Amino acid sequence: MFVNNSASLSLFLFIIPLSPHLSLPRSLPTLLSEFLDIWNVNMLRNPDEVNKRQHTTHLYANNHLIVRRGQEFQLKVTFDRPYKPSDDQFAVEFVIGCSPQFSKGTYIPVSVASDRQSPWAGRVVDSTGDVVTVGITPAPDCIVGKWRTYVAVVTPYGIRRTRQDESRDVYILFNPWVAADSVFLDDGNEREECVLNEVGVIYHGAYDDVSERPWNFGQFDYGVLDACLFIMDKAAMPITNRGDPIKVARIASAMLNSRDDDGVLVGNWSGDYTYGVAPTSWTGSTEILLNYSSSKMPVCYAQCWVYAAVFNTFLRCLGIPARVVTNFFSSHDNDGNLKTDIILDENGRIDKQRTKDSIWNYHCWNECYMSRPDLPQGFGGWQVVDATPQETSDGMYRCGPASVHAIKHGQICFPFDAPFVFAEVNSDVVFYSRNPRDGTLEPVKVNSSHVGRMVVTKAPGQDARRDITDQYKFPEGSPEERTVLEKAEEYGCQREKATPPEADVELDMPLIEVRVGDDFELKLEFNNKSDQARTGEMYVSGNVVYYTGVTSSEFLFKTPKVILDPMKVIQVRSQDYMRKLVEQANLHFIATGKVKETGQIVTAMRVVTLHNPKLSVQVRGHVSEEMFVTVEFTNPFKFNLEDVYIRVEGPGVMPPKYKHYSQIMAGSSLTWTESFTPRREGPTKLMASLDCAALRQVYGQAQLTIKP
Amino acid sequence: MFVNNSASLSLFLFIIPLSPHLSLPRSLPTLLSEFLDIWNVNMLRNPDEVNKRQHTTHLYANNHLIVRRGQEFQLKVTFDRPYKPSDDQFAVEFVIGCSPQFSKGTYIPVSVASDRQSPWAGRVVDSTGDVVTVGITPAPDCIVGKWRTYVAVVTPYGIRRTRQDESRDVYILFNPWVAADSVFLDDGNEREECVLNEVGVIYHGAYDDVSERPWNFGQFDYGVLDACLFIMDKAAMPITNRGDPIKVARIASAMLNSRDDDGVLVGNWSGDYTYGVAPTSWTGSTEILLNYSSSKMPVCYAQCWVYAAVFNTFLRCLGIPARVVTNFFSSHDNDGNLKTDIILDENGRIDKQRTKDSIWNYHCWNECYMSRPDLPQGFGGWQVVDATPQETSDGMYRCGPASVHAIKHGQICFPFDAPFVFAEVNSDVVFYSRNPRDGTLEPVKVNSSHVGRMVVTKAPGQDARRDITDQYKFPEGSPEERTVLEKAEEYGCQREKATPPEADVELDMPLIEVRVGDDFELKLEFNNKSDQARTGEMYVSGNVVYYTGVTSSEFLFKTPKVILDPMKVIQVRSQDYMRKLVEQANLHFIATGKVKETGQIVTAMRVVTLHNPKLSVQVRGHVSEEMFVTVEFTNPFKFNLEDVYIRVEGPGVMPPKYKHYSQIMAGSSLTWTESFTPRREGPTKLMASLDCAALRQVYGQAQLTIKP
Repeated sequence: MFVNNSASLSLFLFIIPLSPHLSLPRSLPTLLSEFLDIWNVNMLRNPDEVNKRQHTTHLYANNHLIVRRGQEFQLKVTFDRPYKPSDDQFAVEFVIGCSPQFSKGTYIPVSVASDRQSPWAGRVVDSTGDVVTVGITPAPDCIVGKWRTYVAVVTPYGIRRTRQDESRDVYILFNPWVAADSVFLDDGNEREECVLNEVGVIYHGAYDDVSERPWNFGQFDYGVLDACLFIMDKAAMPITNRGDPIKVARIASAMLNSRDDDGVLVGNWSGDYTYGVAPTSWTGSTEILLNYSSSKMPVCYAQCWVYAAVFNTFLRCLGIPARVVTNFFSSHDNDGNLKTDIILDENGRIDKQRTKDSIWNYHCWNECYMSRPDLPQGFGGWQVVDATPQETSDGMYRCGPASVHAIKHGQICFPFDAPFVFAEVNSDVVFYSRNPRDGTLEPVKVNSSHVGRMVVTKAPGQDARRDITDQYKFPEGSPEERTVLEKAEEYGCQREKATPPEADVELDMPLIEVRVGDDFELKLEFNNKSDQARTGEMYVSGNVVYYTGVTSSEFLFKTPKVILDPMKVIQVRSQDYMRKLVEQANLHFIATGKVKETGQIVTAMRVVTLHNPKLSVQVRGHVSEEMFVTVEFTNPFKFNLEDVYIRVEGPGVMPPKYKHYSQIMAGSSLTWTESFTPRREGPTKLMASLDCAALRQVYGQAQLTIKP
Repeated sequence: MFVNNSASLSLFLFIIPLSPHLSLPRSLPTLLSEFLDIWNVNMLRNPDEVNKRQHTTHLYANNHLIVRRGQEFQLKVTFDRPYKPSDDQFAVEFVIGCSPQFSKGTYIPVSVASDRQSPWAGRVVDSTGDVVTVGITPAPDCIVGKWRTYVAVVTPYGIRRTRQDESRDVYILFNPWVAADSVFLDDGNEREECVLNEVGVIYHGAYDDVSERPWNFGQFDYGVLDACLFIMDKAAMPITNRGDPIKVARIASAMLNSRDDDGVLVGNWSGDYTYGVAPTSWTGSTEILLNYSSSKMPVCYAQCWVYAAVFNTFLRCLGIPARVVTNFFSSHDNDGNLKTDIILDENGRIDKQRTKDSIWNYHCWNECYMSRPDLPQGFGGWQVVDATPQETSDGMYRCGPASVHAIKHGQICFPFDAPFVFAEVNSDVVFYSRNPRDGTLEPVKVNSSHVGRMVVTKAPGQDARRDITDQYKFPEGSPEERTVLEKAEEYGCQREKATPPEADVELDMPLIEVRVGDDFELKLEFNNKSDQARTGEMYVSGNVVYYTGVTSSEFLFKTPKVILDPMKVIQVRSQDYMRKLVEQANLHFIATGKVKETGQIVTAMRVVTLHNPKLSVQVRGHVSEEMFVTVEFTNPFKFNLEDVYIRVEGPGVMPPKYKHYSQIMAGSSLTWTESFTPRREGPTKLMASLDCAALRQVYGQAQLTIKP
């Protein structure tokens, strides 16, 4: 009877009742010994077993099995007797979500019989004694998340199935190592960096005076993977969409900010962070994500790089290659209008009241790597996603994924939000001269190279900066650039059409490096390209400006009368600007004026990044035992620092810790030593920040390598 | 002094302080008489004056001036003395929103001097005595909404400006009559229908037995225009986006439903409408929109045609050509998956537990007409927008605009939501046979012509139905159809690949017309195309089904053994289904079975629409004076109707009124007479509905023409 029946069983697809295994009829005890009984299921989930190394998931601080889709993993099933392929039939079943269905891809039965097709491939790798080693290859487009595992045996009395056991849950992630996965990234170096590197560098400052922040993405830290999956749950994202990296990235770009949807991070650009952590104070993503997933409430506070850094953790943690990029002079709120307006009065001086647009000194967003089957060929690869809530994005605070390649070629008719990103890197700055009597605005200068001046990201495999501007734009002034701008205009981008004549006098304010508190000289270099004498009255305005381009206060205003060929020097004293400094402040100088002989307008802009003192971070002790980190800081100013927080953390070695100092006296030093015990071997970093209302963005870091 | 100064004034652009006109220096009383003083501004806003007729806005029940952009309108300014073009300078200023800015297009100064360029053209049409008639042509892409109007005069002491006066506000709408407007619609007939017709017909039922509902869109009714503008305010839609019909339509598709955003209408498909108005009870949009704008709370309740009808009012009211369309057998929640699965057991009988997908009997959405400058050429014209909250639309409950032309050609890579709409009209119905022992699912029949069986809308200018299926799809089985499906698959739509062999026996259940309460016969017609005898056991299942395709209850199940060539008749008695009827119910019959000789599966589906009794609506009295409408109804059933609402309304003649009857006894009649006074001339309709829990969708209407 048994043989007859089993021969007619063709393929192993159960519509599951998720009950414990069936109770058996009492009248048939003798027959039962004929059938396989399952004694144990071993998911081979320890980092030193076969799966995690092969799937490069051994770094996750997580006891469960974690694998990547489209690639085989193994598990061992122990039966009560040796498995006989000719007679016995069993299957491994995987289930996700609350209403599993075969046709939705949320219930996957895997057969090991060679003549049967399963949606995921299954095979017997080894059968020794009572133990069968099964190889399972999840489909390369399967749903990403936490799956439950069952083993089921067919008997003529029905199907016997293992009970639900949380320890057999398996996380299945995206797989950039496998060509069939839509996040496949061929370049091994980039893949290593953009999936596995926990330590990052985020660039800020000015394009010709770039500063950097270290950041602990911490995508492998304990609890982070669950927190990332929680974000999709919180968004009520349909389970069936979670295999599509386009949808995952788009949902996350909305969920990383708290606008609309109680997402992860609350934005705050006010300067008042009393009820949360100042954006400049964070040193990593872990604390933010764990806080969000445990409290289920938005975390306070973020600015653009915090959004980008936590988004990066999310993407890397799920296996989508991702990097943080910084765009210097980023236009925003353009909504397809490629213009930023600066209004000058009749003498060439900036009319502050009427100049309402602003340009962010820099803006950070993410790129993630994936194919784009929803678009015509050629638009796969890096995609812009942006979680910072700016002012336009189709009714919700989110942006992307927008193909970088499409942006470079002006093909902004494809989803999502390409016109917005295009404007961020391509807007013109238009200077208008305003007639004071009747309000006439006349465009007098168009600067088309200021916005999107440089786009950078961390280079793979090294602590160096990589200029990727050429991935977003053709060279300034090239014929391709003109073609692209015309293409973008076809799709509705609006540009300034006026081409005011170029002045025959050029003005430049060369780069200067300045530490906070320094006096310095600002140079105005005139280049008179005519063969005649040129004179004029210049207006030099110095402003303390937030990184978002919004002016806090004007601290300097000079009107030198100059003969427009020599060099002119403006003295800037620290006492002028120090009292007015705000967080993350830069000094913006704009020099404008009118050439007396020709009436032409000359303009120049200079951002002076104020360099902060650094934290000293030093590590002592024998690697792999208890170790010590010492953070040191000396207040270099003539004033006391109050209500100071210092934070320190390091991926794989130290969870985030912080210490509060109510006061650091002018000129005095502090030393803070903490012990830590490394969790795993390899190179890593410890990074620290110091933060108080009067001084933000003070960072320090130490490299170290933990030996086995 | 006056002449000198005025000559140097070049163009009229003021950055406005929105103050009342400037107080004048006390020391200069004598000079003042030299300058123009504004005595009056007449917006020529009465329907019998020049503007409203020329702009076809005379139908709006609204005292303000209403004009369409890109087309000249006139206003009269009365000065204290004749206007001298050589000496005097004045401008008309238009302002919208709370922070008007010239560069954002929210502050528009219009000069009448011929040598000056304004963003909107201005000219002196006539100057007689002290009165100047000014012609203003708003830009054809200007912001749509309610603008404030000022007149300003230049004096050497500053600008004198009229005070804000609400009566001078002007509504500027989209203009489908003007080629430069992106909603331009060349076909005069369609434009007339899709912008100006207040009366509509919405189709439902089944593709071969179509029923219709009359609807009062009421886009010109008192308060409706303000309610439509309020919807954009409630959505916090940036003022600067409100000139773009793409953005306006997209925002509205989200705002018409209450999901996410406290929009206009709460969906309810539960059958319990205790706390609101049953979706089947509404006869027009006016009541809903006015209720929403006054309460600022979502209105209860809607189903798809209510969403589409109110959305239609919104679009027509703002001047965007729009129509309601009905798609018969509309697939939904496909998310790019072009399959609806029906599971049969081994004998060919439907497995209800495992068949989870459903197909809407019909679904209503809107089309709106506009160019698509954001897409490549060729995708302008009709665009699908859908306000009914279905289950997928990029994280929010909204859909479109998606180009109908793009859907027809499978070019679904362009925004917005084209893959979703494509699936609604192109999904396959796949029948699977399930092996009961191991759960195997084997596709046995693919029906690719069921879904999107017919798309219809009201024909322009007449009360007739127009089949527009060919605008969405190429003919079934044509080579173009195959190409389009392949193109859509390139962009990620998933189809069933199996092509099970066709059975040599065909089964059909022909159309029958049935009134509620009738007994009837259901015919099974077999066509045996083989030259051999065929027999089999058939399963005929009859179900009461909501219009969303969800089964309420099975009332009939028969298993005739048949020889598969004659005709078989199944008796259906009203007593079987009447007790189980739910609102808007149809009877769905599915016949399935297996041919004994070949094992082939035969299937057929039939929707039987139950036709309701009608309301009699009759009009008495002399047109243009007080008139009377009488609504009559006889309960044809053997049971009493309880808690009955009757509604009646007519555009331009009667606002919505309703009456409640606690009981209408079996077989008894009621008569309700109401008086009304027509507001304006021309043809119109009075439409009435009767609604109670046991009987929904009872409609009646009367045509009438009001003479002057």
